[in-house]
Amino acid sequence: MSKGRLEAFSDGVLAVIITIMVLEMKSPHGTSLADLKPVVPIFLSYLLSFVYIGIYWNNHHHLLHATQHVNGATMWANLHLLFWLSLIPFTTAWIGENHFDSWPVAIYGFILLMAGVAYFILTKTLIRLHGERSTLADAIGSDRKGKISIVLYAIAIPLAFVQPWIASVFYIAVAIMWLVPDRRIEGKIQE
Amino acid sequence: MSKGRLEAFSDGVLAVIITIMVLEMKSPHGTSLADLKPVVPIFLSYLLSFVYIGIYWNNHHHLLHATQHVNGATMWANLHLLFWLSLIPFTTAWIGENHFDSWPVAIYGFILLMAGVAYFILTKTLIRLHGERSTLADAIGSDRKGKISIVLYAIAIPLAFVQPWIASVFYIAVAIMWLVPDRRIEGKIQE
Amino acid sequence: MSKGRLEAFSDGVLAVIITIMVLEMKSPHGTSLADLKPVVPIFLSYLLSFVYIGIYWNNHHHLLHATQHVNGATMWANLHLLFWLSLIPFTTAWIGENHFDSWPVAIYGFILLMAGVAYFILTKTLIRLHGERSTLADAIGSDRKGKISIVLYAIAIPLAFVQPWIASVFYIAVAIMWLVPDRRIEGKIQE
Amino acid sequence: MSKGRLEAFSDGVLAVIITIMVLEMKSPHGTSLADLKPVVPIFLSYLLSFVYIGIYWNNHHHLLHATQHVNGATMWANLHLLFWLSLIPFTTAWIGENHFDSWPVAIYGFILLMAGVAYFILTKTLIRLHGERSTLADAIGSDRKGKISIVLYAIAIPLAFVQPWIASVFYIAVAIMWLVPDRRIEGKIQE
Repeated sequence: MSKGRLEAFSDGVLAVIITIMVLEMKSPHGTSLADLKPVVPIFLSYLLSFVYIGIYWNNHHHLLHATQHVNGATMWANLHLLFWLSLIPFTTAWIGENHFDSWPVAIYGFILLMAGVAYFILTKTLIRLHGERSTLADAIGSDRKGKISIVLYAIAIPLAFVQPWIASVFYIAVAIMWLVPDRRIEGKIQE
Repeated sequence: MSKGRLEAFSDGVLAVIITIMVLEMKSPHGTSLADLKPVVPIFLSYLLSFVYIGIYWNNHHHLLHATQHVNGATMWANLHLLFWLSLIPFTTAWIGENHFDSWPVAIYGFILLMAGVAYFILTKTLIRLHGERSTLADAIGSDRKGKISIVLYAIAIPLAFVQPWIASVFYIAVAIMWLVPDRRIEGKIQE
Repeated sequence: MSKGRLEAFSDGVLAVIITIMVLEMKSPHGTSLADLKPVVPIFLSYLLSFVYIGIYWNNHHHLLHATQHVNGATMWANLHLLFWLSLIPFTTAWIGENHFDSWPVAIYGFILLMAGVAYFILTKTLIRLHGERSTLADAIGSDRKGKISIVLYAIAIPLAFVQPWIASVFYIAVAIMWLVPDRRIEGKIQE
Repeated sequence: MSKGRLEAFSDGVLAVIITIMVLEMKSPHGTSLADLKPVVPIFLSYLLSFVYIGIYWNNHHHLLHATQHVNGATMWANLHLLFWLSLIPFTTAWIGENHFDSWPVAIYGFILLMAGVAYFILTKTLIRLHGERSTLADAIGSDRKGKISIVLYAIAIPLAFVQPWIASVFYIAVAIMWLVPDRRIEGKIQE
């Protein structure tokens, strides 16, 4: 089974997710700069979520690029990932409207955690399909960054109840860590 | 006529459908866990509908994969299917807001029934185009799962007026039955 | 310049247009069948617009299929068509909420008229690029159906102020006329 | 790394952006022509933004057409561009609702300025990847139109506080300047 349509569908879903989040930024009724003030936290949460979806699209691109073929299990592992990512607009809106309060920030972290786990499952599903000695398995390697992210989310979630901004700093830190494209896979393929 | 654009358009529509449903999950105004409570039934109906769209995308993918070419009739049979699927966000929102009441649950089942019928028509249209002895016809076979689904929806709809949760159990059962990818087609193609 | 991305972008825009229209069908707050009643005119206008977008996608598909290459003028002629089509959700919502009143029905017809004109311009732009003796020009022929549609819209718009339902009948009649796929182009290509 | 998926994802995002803007044009509750009046400035801002997204899609198409391959830096430069473009629906809605007031018009110009800068960065990233003597670098040339646009936006933004319509005229002028497709790249490729 070819991977082309899996990529196309994922691109479509990610493109819609990344764009509909902006619908939460309602245009203010006033026209002064002060009227933009309530939009600022929504903008910041939008920016963070945009970067996260961008990271997932980027990693997804790299992962599928190293993939030879897909099967039914891959498709559902992929849909599972898209499911958690599709909840990001909801939790982004909640964060933005409530100025980074404990529960919204914790739930945001929980969605990121589940997306991280779903991505991990997707890589495992693909490795099972291609074999432990495939280029793909080799390219994914130990997936250190993926594991670190999941640990950091798990630490950040309870911290949201101590101080929401500490958890937020964790999310931003994970995003920065991922912003560097997955050179492992890129490197291995180009060899 | 090539099938590429039919797939691309269907992917686009399904990607938008699956993602805009999440817009119904309005972020709560409060920040406590209790504020999330009214979102729970909306979340559950979103989850069920996400799985259903995922199933249709998956089956559509398998079906088109076995397809050699398409014609005008196929295009309209496909648009007919997309029409009923495009109503899922509406009925999902109605279910979610009214906590699985009789009429919303019955209408939800009706939309699923019509989508099932539309999918059946699409398979028949493709078989007519490819011939009864084609790989496609062979691969689709008797389409037992499709027929069972339609029967189960037809039973579930009146049951929604007895007890909405009984109908809901039927919808969930059908989804679980379909979650297993269509191994018939997959198997036949790989021979 | 290749036509692939023009098709992909058009597919994306048409997929979003056809799907976001359904967002106008707000789920009712009550749960009785009577609560669905105000949704009926919105549903009917959605159905008509869905069919129209389907027709345009279908014809666009046939037209681009016969096309060898595109240039800058084609791109803007195509965007011009997409612009008018993108206004269909707005006018569909207006019709649906106001139960087929004069001005909404007239404006709906005006948008259809402009989309028809834009499609006509697109065909002319493509013929100018491919030459009057190309397969494309030959396949489009005199574009009788396109011209008839424009005339029928132009007649229907003033009739909306006499009786909105008469204009609506015209729109439905044009849709039915187009539902038959463009066999001229299909036929010429298959020769 | 192939450019196919970068194009597909960008097409998806641009298709969604260009289409969801129309959701801001809420259908009026009345049915007279006068009820359409408050929609007029929203329509005009929609038209301007539609043209801008169309220009970016067009230029993006030309740019990527001349591109041989992409890397991680390109992907993020591209996402950076899409980020600023994704804010256009927000600022379009703000302009439309406030009838071209100073701050909304200035912020609109700021988003255009940032999108212009992001496009400039994208071209530089691609030139660094392909080399100063590549067809791509040659085709982009000095990117005079890009630089002029950025200067014009920078002039227009402060002018929005003198007279919003003067700034608006600048934005329209830049759009008209770009409406002519990038013949430099087109020309160079066809040689």
